Amino acid sequence: MRYGFGVDLGGTTVKIAYFDENGTLLSKWEIPTVTANSGAQILPDIAASIEQFIDSQHINRDAIIGVGIGVPGPVDGQGVVNKCINLGWGVFNVAETLSGLVGFPVKAGNDANVAALGEYWKGGGKDADNMILATLGTGVGGGIVIGGHLLHGAHGSGAEIGHMVLNRDETEQCGCGKRGCAEQYCSATGIVRLANRAMAREQKASKLRGLNTLTCKDIFDFGAEGDELANDVLNEYYAYLGEFLANLCDVVDPEAVVLGGGVSKAGQVLLDGVRPHFDKHIFHAARGAQFVLASLGNDAGAYGAFKLALDAFG
Amino acid sequence: MRYGFGVDLGGTTVKIAYFDENGTLLSKWEIPTVTANSGAQILPDIAASIEQFIDSQHINRDAIIGVGIGVPGPVDGQGVVNKCINLGWGVFNVAETLSGLVGFPVKAGNDANVAALGEYWKGGGKDADNMILATLGTGVGGGIVIGGHLLHGAHGSGAEIGHMVLNRDETEQCGCGKRGCAEQYCSATGIVRLANRAMAREQKASKLRGLNTLTCKDIFDFGAEGDELANDVLNEYYAYLGEFLANLCDVVDPEAVVLGGGVSKAGQVLLDGVRPHFDKHIFHAARGAQFVLASLGNDAGAYGAFKLALDAFG
Repeated sequence: MRYGFGVDLGGTTVKIAYFDENGTLLSKWEIPTVTANSGAQILPDIAASIEQFIDSQHINRDAIIGVGIGVPGPVDGQGVVNKCINLGWGVFNVAETLSGLVGFPVKAGNDANVAALGEYWKGGGKDADNMILATLGTGVGGGIVIGGHLLHGAHGSGAEIGHMVLNRDETEQCGCGKRGCAEQYCSATGIVRLANRAMAREQKASKLRGLNTLTCKDIFDFGAEGDELANDVLNEYYAYLGEFLANLCDVVDPEAVVLGGGVSKAGQVLLDGVRPHFDKHIFHAARGAQFVLASLGNDAGAYGAFKLALDAFG
Repeated sequence: MRYGFGVDLGGTTVKIAYFDENGTLLSKWEIPTVTANSGAQILPDIAASIEQFIDSQHINRDAIIGVGIGVPGPVDGQGVVNKCINLGWGVFNVAETLSGLVGFPVKAGNDANVAALGEYWKGGGKDADNMILATLGTGVGGGIVIGGHLLHGAHGSGAEIGHMVLNRDETEQCGCGKRGCAEQYCSATGIVRLANRAMAREQKASKLRGLNTLTCKDIFDFGAEGDELANDVLNEYYAYLGEFLANLCDVVDPEAVVLGGGVSKAGQVLLDGVRPHFDKHIFHAARGAQFVLASLGNDAGAYGAFKLALDAFG
């Protein structure tokens, strides 16, 4: 049996996991992401942590296939990152650099793309050779698998699906500087924004009003309790999400759409809510796409990162 | 040297081309598409025509790699077509059937997808391993190349880009039955529709008015002559097309976007017109996509069809 590591590099913590070649997660741990000094310490810290694990577990280095890493920014097929704002990184080859430090071959990808590969390999999108992961969290990220392979894109920014235009008439600005991005409607933040707009626009009494902090979960909870305004907001949300996912599926024509991130904690009600809007907008021949929930949670990135390395060096 | 055939099957004619393995088009001809009797004669006619060519040219059958065919409808990775309305076809394996008739291995794909593979191999998208072809004709078709391979989709309807929603408030119906599809704005028919709406809405004098039949070419010609209303229409068109192509590129992040079909005859003015609108809507990291014109014209489908066979059997 051979083994390897999957690394999910985030803005505050680094998740590192140790897998066997069948994809069984054997061990996982976290270290802090030190972004001081333009993030110069991040890769040495990861290499040292892996080194320490290997020593403490008396692991045979010859049985290690390699290391995969997902990073929060654009990464091209050669492993060159193009500015990871959250880490302070500029432009350099992260795969080569980490490989030099850790002594194993390294493959790098964008974190959202790599999470899609994880869900395809061992999660909600298992066996769906053409698959879209849409991560509906603070923002909207995602990744796309085509014929069993990750879509990286020519400039490492494939599947930046959260920044497709969903409403050209939007006046507020998205975090990316554009206006009307899918992320402004389909994220957990987006649904709260829709709720705030609905409260300002409508006179209806609602449990949504008067909370100190309104969350995505509140809106789903109040909707389930029959709150009319909450359900208006949910229907508006489903309409945006259905149009967004249909546009994606008109391009990709996948077997499965996997929904992850905070919003997906709503569960089956989300899948049921979005489906009629999706069906309205999808091109008939691509209507067979199944909607499923992501199942790997915060481990998706580590699974996918190791799979990247396994596909490249295994 | 080995050889093969590329077949572009259309609703009225079948284009057949004979290539060497380097992709040099050595000979091409057309036969009519006989759609009577649910199109039962189409594949036997193609097989007979290829047979006749081989005999008349004294071609060594052992040097034939195979046949590729593009068909006007959804085709899955195994060659199963799912209803080609224009041909009267239902559901069957077109690759296996044609192979049984012609005695060579056959690979099949959707005609628009196959044309994209042609433009990638020998046309405007040469060397762009990630590429989008958008064919702006009577409708809007297209094909997508990811990492040098065609995106077919799980149900054979990958890259049905013309049916992405571009305007959810549209009241007129698209040919597909939906409302607000990109095809309703970005096709040659779409630009004429925009012009008719502008004439009804605006009072301005314009050369656009009073023609018996207004064409896409008229609008570009009058725009170049300085006609104000024609240029208003062109700007509206560029805004739709720029948003549409940006949404696609947010998903695919390609090296090149290749524009084909009747509208692309406008040439450089089209590329220059759409670019600022594209730049407004594209996610910054994918901004490097180049816009180019398709260069293979009506032969793109035959080139791509042969390339399908070459990749599979060559």
